[in-house]
Amino acid sequence: MKFSITVTLKKDVLDPQGKVVQNTLINMGMNNLKSIRQGKHFEVEVEDKDQTLAEKKVDMMCKKLLVNLIIEDYKITKI
Amino acid sequence: MKFSITVTLKKDVLDPQGKVVQNTLINMGMNNLKSIRQGKHFEVEVEDKDQTLAEKKVDMMCKKLLVNLIIEDYKITKI
Repeated sequence: MKFSITVTLKKDVLDPQGKVVQNTLINMGMNNLKSIRQGKHFEVEVEDKDQTLAEKKVDMMCKKLLVNLIIEDYKITKI
Repeated sequence: MKFSITVTLKKDVLDPQGKVVQNTLINMGMNNLKSIRQGKHFEVEVEDKDQTLAEKKVDMMCKKLLVNLIIEDYKITKI
């Protein structure tokens, strides 16, 4: 069972890396760019058959290791 | 108009960072974990009204700066 995890910085947290990318794109002539924010993406494959259980495990992985809950949000979707 | 860009390493490219995360999760007692691969995620907001044009611009950003097409794949979705 495969899951996709998207980790993004919370709205109020500064994103210097994203800012640099944004400035670079603007310098490259991409106008009309309003904002760009960078995050992380994980593709996890677990061997469980039961979707609820699998989702619970993936959620645990996020909480325990992959996501810094103080500054980051995450979203799990089945793929 | 907001777009989400997911950048992943191509299937045959080694992912040492993902491997480390995988080993750590296994050491933490997460069994049944088959694989985990790490990628990047961008959230872009452009000011264009026309979706086709906006998508084209975002695609150009990916090709010119955000994605290394030799080793990475990318997917753009509207959000």
